[in-house]
Amino acid sequence: MTDLVGGINPVLEALRARGRAVQRIYLAPGRSGAAVNEILTLAADRKIKVERVERSRLDRLFQGRGHQGVVARVGPYPYFQVEEILAEAQSEEELILLLDGVQDPMNLGSLLRSAEAAGACGVIIPRERAAPVSAAALKASAGAAEHLPVARTVNLARTLDQLKKKGFWIIGTEAEAGDSLYDQDLPPKMGLVIGGEGKGLRRLTREKCDRLLSIPMKGRVSSLNAAVAGALAMFEFVRQRRRPEAEPSKFIGK
Amino acid sequence: MTDLVGGINPVLEALRARGRAVQRIYLAPGRSGAAVNEILTLAADRKIKVERVERSRLDRLFQGRGHQGVVARVGPYPYFQVEEILAEAQSEEELILLLDGVQDPMNLGSLLRSAEAAGACGVIIPRERAAPVSAAALKASAGAAEHLPVARTVNLARTLDQLKKKGFWIIGTEAEAGDSLYDQDLPPKMGLVIGGEGKGLRRLTREKCDRLLSIPMKGRVSSLNAAVAGALAMFEFVRQRRRPEAEPSKFIGK
Repeated sequence: MTDLVGGINPVLEALRARGRAVQRIYLAPGRSGAAVNEILTLAADRKIKVERVERSRLDRLFQGRGHQGVVARVGPYPYFQVEEILAEAQSEEELILLLDGVQDPMNLGSLLRSAEAAGACGVIIPRERAAPVSAAALKASAGAAEHLPVARTVNLARTLDQLKKKGFWIIGTEAEAGDSLYDQDLPPKMGLVIGGEGKGLRRLTREKCDRLLSIPMKGRVSSLNAAVAGALAMFEFVRQRRRPEAEPSKFIGK
Repeated sequence: MTDLVGGINPVLEALRARGRAVQRIYLAPGRSGAAVNEILTLAADRKIKVERVERSRLDRLFQGRGHQGVVARVGPYPYFQVEEILAEAQSEEELILLLDGVQDPMNLGSLLRSAEAAGACGVIIPRERAAPVSAAALKASAGAAEHLPVARTVNLARTLDQLKKKGFWIIGTEAEAGDSLYDQDLPPKMGLVIGGEGKGLRRLTREKCDRLLSIPMKGRVSSLNAAVAGALAMFEFVRQRRRPEAEPSKFIGK
């Protein structure tokens, strides 16, 4: 089963990624520039055929989304095994993101992008009733998904037990939780679980969490997008793990 | 000029919002439940006509996006004046979000939702070359945009000067900035400027910023979605303004 990746940066990232078989590149006429030249060079190095096709065909192929005149046909997304992610997560500070039924490929892509930027060592998603790493998710991840190990599990609760055995503490985020993300020292090895859009964490998942934390909210509507909630919790982990500067810079103007 | 709002929560929020003229509601057959009943009750109170239409017509009307069988025709989005937002921002701690050319309605909606949750007193967007508060943005905001004043400006740089005169400090986020968001005491009255997707802050905007801050990133791809960057900066403001608990809760397990 092959998939399509569209857009200059996603195609570049697919070419650069290890473990990703790029089978063919489709390029609209008139595309040029440094990034396109890099695509052509990488493709030549790896003996990947580049086909010039009309933009209208690219539109059909990539179903009207912003492909910027470049589409790559790639092999199936190379999922990792949960065990491979855990084998890499050997340092004293590690972050693994687990998604409990995120359904929207845009949210999945955004979470992968944020996880990569936050230095997570991997992301684990359920095999069923969850968005897979599709072309749309890859595009929303801005290529980050090509560098971040993503594994699928048939049983998230059991996977959480595996993480615990490796020294991870499991933190879930939930709007109703009494403890605030910002009043909590986060564990140095953290498995962060984010629930699906609208539904939140499933009961079995919630029961496996060592702690449930909420993000303090002030508004009237009072709910955050799953991708935003995940980013806030991951970057709070980043913030807390930073080697502190001597003093935070006081706000004294320019 | 009228606009369409689709989806159960967005329609409910439009009905609850002040200043928003809901002209008509379209409901697919077979829709029921508590939320739909609330929509019908609010519509009856406000003498808004509810029309039963086939789902296929709703699909055409709302162009295939997830309308959940409920669409409202509403008057134009009731933008506020910048001066109205400033007149409300009189306390010692205030957050105003300013967007310097965010083009993607999904990102705009997500930023509005996060701004509302973070307690911002308003959002200011440019009138030109920026996504307006369209139906798609409203849907992505999950209704938050109906409760949050949004103003448009023809000259963002001049608006930043207006904010400064009212005691706001202007903070811009930029990937290349040397100072980190997490090493900075943020000002109690903060105008936060987020740049457009891919392009970042314009030169004139950057020059008006009292300080430029970056979000520390660890990955290889190293860029954040504009909506995520904005949420991280707004919630760092929330975190710093929290009345501290006696002690952050240490992580000692369950």
